[in-house]
Amino acid sequence: MFECPIPETEKDYVQMAHGGGGRMMNQLIREVFLKEFGSPEVGKQNDATVLPQVDGRIAMTTDSFVVTPLEFPGGSIGSLAVHGTVNDLAMSGATPLYLTAGFILEEGLSLDLLKRVVKDMAKAAQKAGVTIVTGDTKVVERQGGNGLYINTSGVGIVQHELEICPASIREGDAVLLSGDLGRHGMTIMSLRSGLNFGDQLESDSAAVHKAALALIEAGIPIHCMRDVTRGGLTSTLSEIAEDSGKTISLNEENIPVRDDVRSACQLLGLDPLQVACEGRFAVILPAEYANKALQILHSHPVSQGAEIIGMVETRRTAPLLLTGVLGVERILTMPTGMQLPRIC
Amino acid sequence: MFECPIPETEKDYVQMAHGGGGRMMNQLIREVFLKEFGSPEVGKQNDATVLPQVDGRIAMTTDSFVVTPLEFPGGSIGSLAVHGTVNDLAMSGATPLYLTAGFILEEGLSLDLLKRVVKDMAKAAQKAGVTIVTGDTKVVERQGGNGLYINTSGVGIVQHELEICPASIREGDAVLLSGDLGRHGMTIMSLRSGLNFGDQLESDSAAVHKAALALIEAGIPIHCMRDVTRGGLTSTLSEIAEDSGKTISLNEENIPVRDDVRSACQLLGLDPLQVACEGRFAVILPAEYANKALQILHSHPVSQGAEIIGMVETRRTAPLLLTGVLGVERILTMPTGMQLPRIC
Repeated sequence: MFECPIPETEKDYVQMAHGGGGRMMNQLIREVFLKEFGSPEVGKQNDATVLPQVDGRIAMTTDSFVVTPLEFPGGSIGSLAVHGTVNDLAMSGATPLYLTAGFILEEGLSLDLLKRVVKDMAKAAQKAGVTIVTGDTKVVERQGGNGLYINTSGVGIVQHELEICPASIREGDAVLLSGDLGRHGMTIMSLRSGLNFGDQLESDSAAVHKAALALIEAGIPIHCMRDVTRGGLTSTLSEIAEDSGKTISLNEENIPVRDDVRSACQLLGLDPLQVACEGRFAVILPAEYANKALQILHSHPVSQGAEIIGMVETRRTAPLLLTGVLGVERILTMPTGMQLPRIC
Repeated sequence: MFECPIPETEKDYVQMAHGGGGRMMNQLIREVFLKEFGSPEVGKQNDATVLPQVDGRIAMTTDSFVVTPLEFPGGSIGSLAVHGTVNDLAMSGATPLYLTAGFILEEGLSLDLLKRVVKDMAKAAQKAGVTIVTGDTKVVERQGGNGLYINTSGVGIVQHELEICPASIREGDAVLLSGDLGRHGMTIMSLRSGLNFGDQLESDSAAVHKAALALIEAGIPIHCMRDVTRGGLTSTLSEIAEDSGKTISLNEENIPVRDDVRSACQLLGLDPLQVACEGRFAVILPAEYANKALQILHSHPVSQGAEIIGMVETRRTAPLLLTGVLGVERILTMPTGMQLPRIC
């Protein structure tokens, strides 16, 4: 029987019919998603996936990823979508277990690109020790032809009794940062602007849960922990300080920023403290545990550049203060305008 | 101090800065999302939300919603996003507990429209008895200026030992449908085409978990259950039949389709069996329980139009067969081309 050949260009790209609930969607799911995420749970293809009983409190989180470009030095939207959600779980002290993956594809997206992203996502999940248990695919009409959004939601298990939140922080607490700032943001910026900020610049995107959970396992009574993403360190610590009613004061000279990131920021008029990371976190804990925590962080590759960057004080002047290298203290305020759009 | 006034037009719409991680995002979250989803869990604004221990197997699901238009008779993308995920959990026999909500907003989206959608979402969640425990917001550049995608992921608890999946269905099983087909799809189609298919046509979008779970509570050993969404009844039952290795045979005269939906489908050349619903489900169970199940379904408003529409047989001819009103049997195949895009 003669079958009408599909033109090569069309079959290499996402079509509206891939989202229609019919045969093409079925094929896309089997050939792209199940191939990479082939856990027994996903294989059952039910609307929901039934999982074993979880022994402990559970943690839930969700994050949508709209980063552009979809691939960048150090990762892709796929690995970022795994790291982001794994890190959000870890920041509440939860061991990440299961992820869901929701894809919104734009008509015209290259299937090869989609396959690379999905492969990258599967690899990141495997490395982090989490299972992608269920997924969903939608297709929207062509806009620019290169659109892909991924939502990952996650469930983790909480095996400690700590209340890790801004309300738990106390005067005298130490503030630690797990590594140098701004690499993810400046990598994306470099690609978008066409400027070359140095061959070595790649995203810091990484799953940090092993380092973060090691602190809890060592018995360190963490008060607050948060990953440094959109809005950078300034936003992250401003939120914590505002919600806690305390002041966080930082020492600029202890905040690690690589020279190439610093130069790139200077060139573009950006503040490295406001640039997004995707593999860094801040942790606030009683000062007497600071050195032990630092030692543990240094033993994990993702946090080997950790530093003690500041302390918690009674509220004075403003929620977030920075003492510069010349000894002058200034107020850091949460960025008001548009930071880098679509950074994660 | 003189403050530069923001032009009225701008402050009424979503701006890129609403996604930047800074003060505007913070304000959007507090004034739009927390206002409506104000559960104590969401109020804590951590990256992940820690919830009590769940006693039983857990079920997880995810669904992204891209329906256009964003509001329609019978609901909005907000209520749809709750119903869709609640229903996916219910179809595995899970009691829905917690939802996450991920928003991707397009620059230029009306804030009033967003607020209405979020309010509708909160109302649907409350009515369904589920809590929205955490959320996320991203903003993407202006395309058409009316874009909003919502991902909801859900966690439920499974309190039965049934294996509800295609592999469980047996020859002789009865196939029940919870109500009339095609109302959601034809409501959206009617809005898009500008055709008026009758004043009474509104989406069937609804949470069906109470009806579905009542069957399990009554001790009915359900073999398979699935909601009828994209691709309609044909896709839903084709997938089950294909995965099970059995044939499902349907009687057309028992499949409920309202006259206005049937006429609208005829006008547009659509098959009502391929049109999406958002408040209907098919359930496959041992024939001896069919009447008891029907009685239970009729006692719930969302499934008061339930019918026995077919049975499971040993595989013959094709996975899915339909005997028409004139007694002629024909093969139903999963739709291959594009169905209605962006229906859910």
